Amino acid sequence: MKVLLTVLDGISDRPIKKFDEKTPLKKSDTPNLDHLARSGVNGILDPISPGIRAGSDTAHLSLLGYEPRDIYTGRGPLEASGAGIKVKKGDLGLRCNFATKENNEVVDRRAGRISNTSELVKSINEEISEIEGVKVFFKESTGHRAGLVLRGKNLSNKITDSDPKKPHKEPKKIKPLEKEAKKTATILNQFISETEKILKDHPLNEKREKRGDLPANTVLLRGAGKVPEIDNIKTKYGIKGGLITATGLIKGIGKICGLDIIEVPDASGSVDSDIVAKAEKTLEVIDDYDFILLHIKGGDEASHDGDPEKKVKFLEEKIDPAMKKIVNNLDNENVVKAVTADHTTSSELKDHTGDPVPLTINSSNVRKDEVTKFSEETYKGGINRIKGRNLMPILLDLANRTEKYGA
Amino acid sequence: MKVLLTVLDGISDRPIKKFDEKTPLKKSDTPNLDHLARSGVNGILDPISPGIRAGSDTAHLSLLGYEPRDIYTGRGPLEASGAGIKVKKGDLGLRCNFATKENNEVVDRRAGRISNTSELVKSINEEISEIEGVKVFFKESTGHRAGLVLRGKNLSNKITDSDPKKPHKEPKKIKPLEKEAKKTATILNQFISETEKILKDHPLNEKREKRGDLPANTVLLRGAGKVPEIDNIKTKYGIKGGLITATGLIKGIGKICGLDIIEVPDASGSVDSDIVAKAEKTLEVIDDYDFILLHIKGGDEASHDGDPEKKVKFLEEKIDPAMKKIVNNLDNENVVKAVTADHTTSSELKDHTGDPVPLTINSSNVRKDEVTKFSEETYKGGINRIKGRNLMPILLDLANRTEKYGA
Repeated sequence: MKVLLTVLDGISDRPIKKFDEKTPLKKSDTPNLDHLARSGVNGILDPISPGIRAGSDTAHLSLLGYEPRDIYTGRGPLEASGAGIKVKKGDLGLRCNFATKENNEVVDRRAGRISNTSELVKSINEEISEIEGVKVFFKESTGHRAGLVLRGKNLSNKITDSDPKKPHKEPKKIKPLEKEAKKTATILNQFISETEKILKDHPLNEKREKRGDLPANTVLLRGAGKVPEIDNIKTKYGIKGGLITATGLIKGIGKICGLDIIEVPDASGSVDSDIVAKAEKTLEVIDDYDFILLHIKGGDEASHDGDPEKKVKFLEEKIDPAMKKIVNNLDNENVVKAVTADHTTSSELKDHTGDPVPLTINSSNVRKDEVTKFSEETYKGGINRIKGRNLMPILLDLANRTEKYGA
Repeated sequence: MKVLLTVLDGISDRPIKKFDEKTPLKKSDTPNLDHLARSGVNGILDPISPGIRAGSDTAHLSLLGYEPRDIYTGRGPLEASGAGIKVKKGDLGLRCNFATKENNEVVDRRAGRISNTSELVKSINEEISEIEGVKVFFKESTGHRAGLVLRGKNLSNKITDSDPKKPHKEPKKIKPLEKEAKKTATILNQFISETEKILKDHPLNEKREKRGDLPANTVLLRGAGKVPEIDNIKTKYGIKGGLITATGLIKGIGKICGLDIIEVPDASGSVDSDIVAKAEKTLEVIDDYDFILLHIKGGDEASHDGDPEKKVKFLEEKIDPAMKKIVNNLDNENVVKAVTADHTTSSELKDHTGDPVPLTINSSNVRKDEVTKFSEETYKGGINRIKGRNLMPILLDLANRTEKYGA
């Protein structure tokens, strides 16, 4: 049997006052998600462990069966990998923003929401390929984002960010947090100053300024982390896995874990994304894989915007029609279908919280329970409460793809 | 208070299509098991951890509170101990089959299901007691089975099996999987060739061939493992424990953990076993012990045979009458009675699966819940979901036999 794991990013929530204490999941009319719950086995899942506020990165690592405490040092290498840099074990990765600086003050952390930085990146790469004997890889990602990777000896992720996080602040000098990180900090500060020289009179910035747009005249760095050494999915579980996502960070995790990235042109990672197209792509490729991770982002965005109505709308008008495709086309004799979230995102707090998330597993061989709706009330089901890293062993066992431990 | 832990080997199952999606436990009429659940506290238990397909050996170690990942290297030493070899820490143990070889091909892995090999074992022991300075211990077990132990320096369990597993294959040469295992592989290959010389013209084999039975003219080795260093039950928990089982492997685990093996002549480890005799033996000896592990095997056998009806029959006609003895004779003021399984065995897959198993704990001091039947639906009970290694601390706490941790 194959496994399809659908992760509804941040779909879980806390009770919403104006929804009469219902969560968006509980308020939504989602007959297809509910069908999966009603004919499946249900429970709740702590992405990391109870009460821990997971990021999407640490949660996805955990859902894939890795122990983030052993391998996660920062978001940088995952973003850099997602941007398309072929990272290697031991590389130092960072997240970058193109930004606008005036009088040594960051006036816009996103450089007027610049949408295409490839010309800038090209110029930077022409000038900078090595600093102090350390190789430098730089690549644009979506919008104002980019990834930076350093490859060489004695690099450390124990450094501060240059990103001041808020506008109208000076960009910070990157500082070492341990003696061994001095060299890394020096290289990165040099990267920033050399980049600023390249960007200062760049033709693209001149064009932007002429038409009244903010110039992308600096880069802000944050999220330094080392690329971990991990067994990929193939080695770990003996399966061929694919990933469908529009989110760079999740792509980066997929690449590091050895999942094939399956592109869907009309998927955007926002509430306007074509989720049915993602479901259709899943149906198209599932025969080529043992395992597909289908990641759907919009619900998280709605919560970060503090808009639970948008979350309900996204659930009813985007997610559930996509689930209908899956329910109608993947039979439960051949595919173990699981639906969960990577973390709770509170629409009132506009941020992730440490609450558990719902989990439904649907296949012909599960012990069905009495849960009838996919919501935070799946706690009443037969799975009770598990941790993120327990999920893959359960799904692969149901798919009859595991080795016996002992005799 | 005393503790009686009844382990119904492989009794848990997945939904059975021809049972209208009921499991054998759910389908069975077992008033006495159900009485224990109805007046007890219930939950589900992951023998190792969620989704992990446990063997009976790793599961029993876990149920006794040991961490198999720290101590388990293979089934061999447990089988050898179960056969009666007094194993010591560091010994290398292997499982053996007497088999029939013709033209260098294994024609029967069980030597015509030979029932008594003690004469063969005696001859082998007369000839072989040491190879290359390493002591050799060999002992017959039930039927065609035997245990082999090597005692000496620099032995390794990182070797391949000689058993080809399927008939009409050549027996394999034992090969080292690491450099340090070369000596062990050499000794074992020499043991096999010397044994074959002894068996070739053995009077018992001549007799067998005369009456048309297959000769036991070779031994097949597998399941190499080192005898672990573990605290026995007495040291670990301060209790005197006894074990009632008809299964060699479980006896071996009991011996290694310091449980007294209590024999019941009419117990066979099969569906035809006299389980009531085991319950009666339990009543007879419980005054001499703080803890009894009562192991009942037949349900697992029925599942491995793909026969859920046989499992139901065994539950109704063998297990439940034995439980009646226990319910009627061990009052819940004096004995904490727990019933669980070591793993799920799917009657449709005919093999172990990673699903959780039911758990009932019955004593006067438990917080009773609303569960009314001993089945996989014990997930609704007050224990929720625990791991195998959590069970002993819970049972010993209810028996008021534990030390406070802290003040």
